[in-house]
Amino acid sequence: MFYHDKKLQYTVKVDKPDPRFARALQQAIGGIEGEIRVCLQYLFQAWNSRGPVRYRDMLLNTGTEEIAHIEMLATAVCLNLEGASSSVIETIVGNDPLMEKIMGGGDPRHFLSGGMGALASDANGVPFNGSWVVSSGNIAADMYANVMAEATGRTLATRLYEMTDDAGMKDMLSFLIARDTMHQQQWLAVLEELGHGDIRGVHPIPNSFPQSQEHQEFSYAFVDTNIDPDSPSVGQNRRWTQGQSLDGRSEFREIKAQPVGSEPQLGPPIPEGHAQTEQIERAGQKY
Amino acid sequence: MFYHDKKLQYTVKVDKPDPRFARALQQAIGGIEGEIRVCLQYLFQAWNSRGPVRYRDMLLNTGTEEIAHIEMLATAVCLNLEGASSSVIETIVGNDPLMEKIMGGGDPRHFLSGGMGALASDANGVPFNGSWVVSSGNIAADMYANVMAEATGRTLATRLYEMTDDAGMKDMLSFLIARDTMHQQQWLAVLEELGHGDIRGVHPIPNSFPQSQEHQEFSYAFVDTNIDPDSPSVGQNRRWTQGQSLDGRSEFREIKAQPVGSEPQLGPPIPEGHAQTEQIERAGQKY
Amino acid sequence: MFYHDKKLQYTVKVDKPDPRFARALQQAIGGIEGEIRVCLQYLFQAWNSRGPVRYRDMLLNTGTEEIAHIEMLATAVCLNLEGASSSVIETIVGNDPLMEKIMGGGDPRHFLSGGMGALASDANGVPFNGSWVVSSGNIAADMYANVMAEATGRTLATRLYEMTDDAGMKDMLSFLIARDTMHQQQWLAVLEELGHGDIRGVHPIPNSFPQSQEHQEFSYAFVDTNIDPDSPSVGQNRRWTQGQSLDGRSEFREIKAQPVGSEPQLGPPIPEGHAQTEQIERAGQKY
Amino acid sequence: MFYHDKKLQYTVKVDKPDPRFARALQQAIGGIEGEIRVCLQYLFQAWNSRGPVRYRDMLLNTGTEEIAHIEMLATAVCLNLEGASSSVIETIVGNDPLMEKIMGGGDPRHFLSGGMGALASDANGVPFNGSWVVSSGNIAADMYANVMAEATGRTLATRLYEMTDDAGMKDMLSFLIARDTMHQQQWLAVLEELGHGDIRGVHPIPNSFPQSQEHQEFSYAFVDTNIDPDSPSVGQNRRWTQGQSLDGRSEFREIKAQPVGSEPQLGPPIPEGHAQTEQIERAGQKY
Amino acid sequence: MFYHDKKLQYTVKVDKPDPRFARALQQAIGGIEGEIRVCLQYLFQAWNSRGPVRYRDMLLNTGTEEIAHIEMLATAVCLNLEGASSSVIETIVGNDPLMEKIMGGGDPRHFLSGGMGALASDANGVPFNGSWVVSSGNIAADMYANVMAEATGRTLATRLYEMTDDAGMKDMLSFLIARDTMHQQQWLAVLEELGHGDIRGVHPIPNSFPQSQEHQEFSYAFVDTNIDPDSPSVGQNRRWTQGQSLDGRSEFREIKAQPVGSEPQLGPPIPEGHAQTEQIERAGQKY
Amino acid sequence: MFYHDKKLQYTVKVDKPDPRFARALQQAIGGIEGEIRVCLQYLFQAWNSRGPVRYRDMLLNTGTEEIAHIEMLATAVCLNLEGASSSVIETIVGNDPLMEKIMGGGDPRHFLSGGMGALASDANGVPFNGSWVVSSGNIAADMYANVMAEATGRTLATRLYEMTDDAGMKDMLSFLIARDTMHQQQWLAVLEELGHGDIRGVHPIPNSFPQSQEHQEFSYAFVDTNIDPDSPSVGQNRRWTQGQSLDGRSEFREIKAQPVGSEPQLGPPIPEGHAQTEQIERAGQKY
Repeated sequence: MFYHDKKLQYTVKVDKPDPRFARALQQAIGGIEGEIRVCLQYLFQAWNSRGPVRYRDMLLNTGTEEIAHIEMLATAVCLNLEGASSSVIETIVGNDPLMEKIMGGGDPRHFLSGGMGALASDANGVPFNGSWVVSSGNIAADMYANVMAEATGRTLATRLYEMTDDAGMKDMLSFLIARDTMHQQQWLAVLEELGHGDIRGVHPIPNSFPQSQEHQEFSYAFVDTNIDPDSPSVGQNRRWTQGQSLDGRSEFREIKAQPVGSEPQLGPPIPEGHAQTEQIERAGQKY
Repeated sequence: MFYHDKKLQYTVKVDKPDPRFARALQQAIGGIEGEIRVCLQYLFQAWNSRGPVRYRDMLLNTGTEEIAHIEMLATAVCLNLEGASSSVIETIVGNDPLMEKIMGGGDPRHFLSGGMGALASDANGVPFNGSWVVSSGNIAADMYANVMAEATGRTLATRLYEMTDDAGMKDMLSFLIARDTMHQQQWLAVLEELGHGDIRGVHPIPNSFPQSQEHQEFSYAFVDTNIDPDSPSVGQNRRWTQGQSLDGRSEFREIKAQPVGSEPQLGPPIPEGHAQTEQIERAGQKY
Repeated sequence: MFYHDKKLQYTVKVDKPDPRFARALQQAIGGIEGEIRVCLQYLFQAWNSRGPVRYRDMLLNTGTEEIAHIEMLATAVCLNLEGASSSVIETIVGNDPLMEKIMGGGDPRHFLSGGMGALASDANGVPFNGSWVVSSGNIAADMYANVMAEATGRTLATRLYEMTDDAGMKDMLSFLIARDTMHQQQWLAVLEELGHGDIRGVHPIPNSFPQSQEHQEFSYAFVDTNIDPDSPSVGQNRRWTQGQSLDGRSEFREIKAQPVGSEPQLGPPIPEGHAQTEQIERAGQKY
Repeated sequence: MFYHDKKLQYTVKVDKPDPRFARALQQAIGGIEGEIRVCLQYLFQAWNSRGPVRYRDMLLNTGTEEIAHIEMLATAVCLNLEGASSSVIETIVGNDPLMEKIMGGGDPRHFLSGGMGALASDANGVPFNGSWVVSSGNIAADMYANVMAEATGRTLATRLYEMTDDAGMKDMLSFLIARDTMHQQQWLAVLEELGHGDIRGVHPIPNSFPQSQEHQEFSYAFVDTNIDPDSPSVGQNRRWTQGQSLDGRSEFREIKAQPVGSEPQLGPPIPEGHAQTEQIERAGQKY
Repeated sequence: MFYHDKKLQYTVKVDKPDPRFARALQQAIGGIEGEIRVCLQYLFQAWNSRGPVRYRDMLLNTGTEEIAHIEMLATAVCLNLEGASSSVIETIVGNDPLMEKIMGGGDPRHFLSGGMGALASDANGVPFNGSWVVSSGNIAADMYANVMAEATGRTLATRLYEMTDDAGMKDMLSFLIARDTMHQQQWLAVLEELGHGDIRGVHPIPNSFPQSQEHQEFSYAFVDTNIDPDSPSVGQNRRWTQGQSLDGRSEFREIKAQPVGSEPQLGPPIPEGHAQTEQIERAGQKY
Repeated sequence: MFYHDKKLQYTVKVDKPDPRFARALQQAIGGIEGEIRVCLQYLFQAWNSRGPVRYRDMLLNTGTEEIAHIEMLATAVCLNLEGASSSVIETIVGNDPLMEKIMGGGDPRHFLSGGMGALASDANGVPFNGSWVVSSGNIAADMYANVMAEATGRTLATRLYEMTDDAGMKDMLSFLIARDTMHQQQWLAVLEELGHGDIRGVHPIPNSFPQSQEHQEFSYAFVDTNIDPDSPSVGQNRRWTQGQSLDGRSEFREIKAQPVGSEPQLGPPIPEGHAQTEQIERAGQKY
C-alpha cells in the first residue's frame, strides 16, 4: 500500500523557462529510458516476486522512490512551460547550433492537450508503452533489465544536463544522476550476490560523466520508503545498504525517505489555455 | 514524494486459481478502464494542477490510493496463476457456455514472458498506453474524464464480479467496487462545487449492480494517503469528506489510509518457468 | 447506411497558409480529443446500442455529423499547407514567443508521406488509436465518456482559436466550438433524463471562452442527418430538441443537416511532391 | 458532408450466435485489412485530392459506402454475442479441428469492455491504428494501396466465409465479397485510365473463390452515395460505371445507394453486463 | 551489405503440428524478447557504432546471424500450422491443465491474415514495436541491453521447450538456447573487456535449465557471418573467440557461418485459405 | 540463412550535415513507406511462401537486399548528425520557406536516446510497427502490397531528393530511387505472369520524377544476393531477369550482389553524448 507527502523528494527550480527543454524532459518521464518505466518495472517485479523476500522488499522501496522522480520531472516540465519572456527564451539553448537545430520547437500538445502541463509521453509525444515493463519471473534477467534501464536512464540524464545551462535544472539533474548511480550499484549488487561475477571497481554508466557533478551525498544511499515500523524493509546483511560500494568509491548506507524539496508552486493558468474561470480566479488561494 | 507499506490495502485471497480469470483481471490493471490509467491520470492532474490547491490535494490522495489497487490486482493475477489442479480449473467458470466461450484460454505471456506474473497489459495482452492519461489543464474537463474513468472502471469491476464464483475474488472486487463508488462521488462533488449542476440523488454507475454486494463501509470514505503531519491534506470545508453523499445514501467521511490486507505470500516459482536456481532453492526463506 | 454531399458542413477558408497551424490542427483530427475519435465513438455506441431506440437514433445523427467535421479539418490542413510565401509565414503566429517556441515547425510527414495532405494522426504525428473509442454497453458511462470527449475537444478548439489570427480559421473554429457546445449539452441532457442530477445552468466547458466568439446560431441546434422520410430520427418528446437549453441561455431546436460551405477547391500538387504527371497536367479540369 | 439512414446496406442475420465468430469478424472491422481502414483511407484520399475532380468524387462515394460496411459488421458482432444456448455454441464451428484450435475462445473485452458490443480492434483485440490510412498525394500510388487493401480485404472475407456455416453470416459475407470485387475493379480501372497497363481479364483476388458464391448483382455496380441533386457525382465517360468490367465477366453499371437491409434489432442487455437499469427496463420500447 | 543462402541455419522439423504452439512461437519472433528485436538491435548498434571497430564488427556478425533465427522460427510457425488431424492436435499439449488453459487456442490471424503463415507479432498478436530497439550510443549501456535481451530471450526459449513434447521442436529450441548461451557470454565478455567486473564463473541465465539439454557444440562458438575474404571480421585478440568461456565450462571458438538445416519445404496452401489458383495448382513445382 | 560484408551496397557521403535531414531520412528507415517494412515484408512473404518456389526465391533475394538499404540510410542519418558548424546548417535547406517551416528542427531523440545515431522510428519518432508487414498467403495480394510499398517508397525517396541540395545525399537517393524502379517492375512482372494484365509501358511511380536523375544502371537489374553455388536463385525463364523491362525503356538483367560503397567511417562520439570513456579514447583505433 502507498502513501504520499506533498513535498518533493528534491528541489525543482527553473530560472529560465524553456518549452524546448520541457519537451526534452518528457523523454525522462514517458520515454523508454524514463521514470514511468522504471517505476512500474520495479513495482511489477516486486508484486510478481517469487523466491526470497529480500528482493521483493528492495524492489518495493526503489519502485516507490521512482514515483517521486516522475513527480519531480512533471513539475519541471510545468515550470519550463511557464510564461517566459521572449528575450529569455532566445538565449536558453545558447550558441550551439547542433543543439538548436535538434530541438526545433517544443511539444505543441503541452499547450493543446495539457494546458501547459506534462504528458505521459516521450520527447516526440509518443505515449508511454506498457510493453517496456519487464518482469520476467527470473531474478537475474530482471536485474540485468534494471541495470540496463538505469544505464540508459543515467545516460539520458547526463545528456539533458548538457543541454541546459539553467542552474535549477542542472541541480535537479545532478540529484537524479546520483540516484541513478545508486540504483545501478544496487542492481549489480544483487547480481553479485547471485553469483554473477565480481563486479568491484565498476563505475556507473556512462563513466565519462564526472561524478563531481552529481550530488554525491545521494550516490551511494539506499532510500527506504517503507513507513511500517512493525515490518522494516531491511535489516542486517544487505549488500546494498552497508560496506564498500561496488565501484570502490564510497560506502553504501541506508536512509529513510524524506523530502528535501518543498511543495511545488505552479503559476496560474495562462488565459489562452482556457482553464475554468474558477481556476483562474482562485489561483492565488491556498485552498 | 511517496512511501509504502508492505501490506495490501485490502485482503487478496484466491480459493480456486484460474488462469483465465487472471487474464480477465489484466483488463483492470493495464486496460483503458484499468488502475494504471486512473493512477497516472490523477497523479498527472495533481502535478499539473494550476488553481486552488484543494483539488491538487484531493487528486494526490486518490492517485496514491490507486497504486495500491494495481498492487492488489497484480497480486490477484499471480495467485490465480498458481499451480491449480486439473479438476479445480475445470469447474471454475461453471456452466455458462457464453462465458466459457468468451474467455477461451488465459494469456500465454503470463507464462512465456512473466513466469506466472502480472503484466502491464490488458486482457488481450495489449500494452498499457500513456495516451489514455488525460490531464487537460481544465479542471472541469478533467473531472468529467475522471467520472468517466470510474464509471467504466466500476462497470468493468462488476462484470469481473459476475465472471467468478471464487469467494476471495468476489470479496476483493466488492472492495474495489466500493472504492469506485466513492471516487465517482468525489469527482461529481467537485463538479457540483464548480457549478456543474445539482447532482444529488445520482447513484453510482452502473446502477444495476446491487450496492448490498459492495463493501459499503468503504463506499463513502475519502482515503487520506498523506502522511505529513505538518501539512494535512484536508481540513474543514470539503464537500467530499463530510455531509450527505451525493446519492443521498450515506454520509461522506474521511479516513487515514491504512492496510486491511496483509503482506502477500506468493507460491514458489514453477519449475517449467525457469526462475534462477537461487529463487527456487530459497523460496521458503523470509529473507 | 450512409450518404454524402460534396459540399462542406461549414465554410473552410485560409487566408494565410501556415504549415505549423496545419500541424496543430492534426490534434483535432487524429488526436485523442479529435473528431475521428468522437465520430467512431458515437457510431459504435449507436451500433452497439441495447435499450430504448431514442439513444441509438441520437447517437447515429451526431456520429454522422462528426464525419463532416473530420472533412472540414482535413480540408483546413490541406489549405494551410498550400504554397505560402515566405513573408506570410513569418508573420503568422505573431509575436508571442511562447507560441512560437512551442510550435517549432510543421509535420514533415505532411510533405514526405502526404504530398501536402492531412494524416490520420495527432499534432506529433502519433497515429489515431482505436482504443480511444469508448462504447461500454452502459449508457450512462457512455454519456460521461461523450461529455468528457466534447469537454476536452472544445478546450482544444478554443486553444487552436487562440493560436491563429487567420480570419478564415477563426471562423471555422467558432463554428466547431458552437457544435461542441451543443454536443456537450445534448449528452448532459441524456444524463439528466437518466436521473443524473439537475444540470440546469451548466455552461459549456471551458467556461472561460466567451460564447460571443462562437457561432451561436449553431450552439443549441440538434443536427438531424437522417434522410429517410419514412423513418424520422426524432419526433416529440426529446429533451435535446426543444425547450430551454441546459445552460439556460437559449432554446434547443432541431435542424435538418445541410451544407453551409461549398465544395472544397484545393490547389494543384506542388512539383516537389511528385504527384503523377496526369494529376499535375489535368489539375485545372473539372472532371 | 454526410447523412445516414437507419437501415443497413444489406441484411445482417445470425442464426447461431457464436462469440468466437464475433471475434473473427473484428478483423474485418478494426484489422489492417478491415473496413475502418478502407473507409478512412478513401475519405482521406478524397479530402486530400489534388488534380482532376473525377477521382475525388469516386473516392468520396466509395469511402461513404464503407461506413455502411463497418455498421453491418458491428451489427454482426453484436448479434453473434447474443445469449446463445450451450448446445448451439458447441456445434458452431463444426468438426474441423484446425479451425477449432485456431479460434480458441472469443474476445473477453467484448464482455468486459463492451457489454456485448463491437470494438474498434482486430481479432486479437489490437486497436485500429491510423498509420494504416494511406493517402500519399500520388494518385497511382494511392490506387495501388487501394487495390492492395481490397485484395487482402476480399481474401479475409472469403476466409471468414469458410469459417462459418451460419446461413445469415454466409449471406452477409457473400454481399461484402461482391462489393470487394467491384472495388478492386474500380481502382484497377483508374490505374488503366492512368496508363498502368491493359488490365482486361483480371479476375478479382483471390481468384480461387468461386464467384458463384458471391452476390453477383452487386459485383459490378458502382454505388453512388451522393444525394445532392444539383451536383451529381458521376456522369458520362467514367470507365467504372459503364462498359465491360475489367475481368470481362459483366458490364459495369451505376446504382444509387439504397438500403437492402432493415433497421437492426439487437437483443436487450444481458444482466451480467450491468447496463443501466433504465436500459434494461425500457429495452422493449421503440423510443 | 547482406547475402543469403536458401538453407536454414539449423534443422526445423515438426512432427505433430499444433497451432497453439505456433502462437506461442510468435513470442520468440515478434515479442519484446524475440528475434526481430535482437536482430535490429544488434544491427542498429553496429550501424551507429562510434569508437573502436572491434565492437562494430562483432555486432554485425551476430545481428546477421539473428536474421537466420527469425527465419527458423517463421518456418516453425508455418509447419505447426499445417493440416494436422484432429487426434494429433488433441494430444499435443498433454495432460498439464495449466498449460492447456493458458494457451487456449491459436492466433486466428494466422489463418485470417496470414493464410497459415507467420506474423511480425507476439503471442497475443500485438505487433513488433521499434521502440524496443535499443542503441544508446554508449557501448556499456548497449551491452547491458544485449545481455538483458539474451537473458529474457533464453528464458523464453526454455519455457517454449517445456511447453512442447514435439521432438523436432525440442531439437530446434535446444539449438536456439545454445546460441543464446553464446550471445550472453559474448556481450558479458565485452563488458569485462570494458572493465565491468570479473565475470568468470557466470552461468547463462536461466541457470536452472540443464545445459545438457542444449546443443553444446554451438554454446561457445562465435559465428562469423562475414563473407568478405579481404576484410575478415575477427583476427587475434578477441576475448569472445578464444580462451576459456566466461562460465568456465568450455573454450570459446570461432566458426564460419554455414547452414546445418536444409531448404524449407512447406506444404501447399489449404483450400480454405484462398491462395491464388496458380499457387495451388503449381504447388508441387520446383520452379 | 544470412551473411554480410562490411561494405555498403552503395556510397553514402554527406557534405553538409543537417540534423533536420537526418530526421527526414528516418521516414525511409522506420516509416510505413520505409525499408524496415519492405525488408521484413519480403522476407516474411518468402518464409511463408506456399506454391511454386520461383517466388520464394525472388522474395528472399530482394528482402535480403533491403537490409542493405536500411544500413545505408542509418549510416546517412549518423553522418547527418555529425558536428556541423553553425554556418553550414543555416544554409542547408536553402531559401524555400515552406520546406523550412515544415521541417522545424531535428529529432531530439537522435541525441537524447541515440547519442547521435539512427532509430527504428519514422520522421516523427513514431516507432516502426510490425502490423505493416503484409504477408497474406495469397501471392497476388502480396504482390499488390509490394507494388504499393515500392510506389509510396519511391515517392518518399523523390521527396527526400527534393529536400536536400547535398551532393552526397542526392547521389545516394538516386541509387535508392533506381532500386525502387526495379522493384516496382519486378513485382508487376509477377502480376503479369499470374495473369494480372498486360502491364507493358507502365512507368515507375511517381512518373513525374525524371529518370535521368536516377542511377539508371541499377534501374533494371535484379540483384541476386544468394551466395550458395550449389543452389542458384534463378536460372532461365524468369520474366524479371531478362527481356524488355515492363516500361519498355530497357532490358532486365541479373547481377550478383556486390558492394559499390566502402566500409562506413563514422566520426567519434561527441562529448555531450557521454559515450563510455573507452569509446572516446579509442575512437581512432582500427580494432
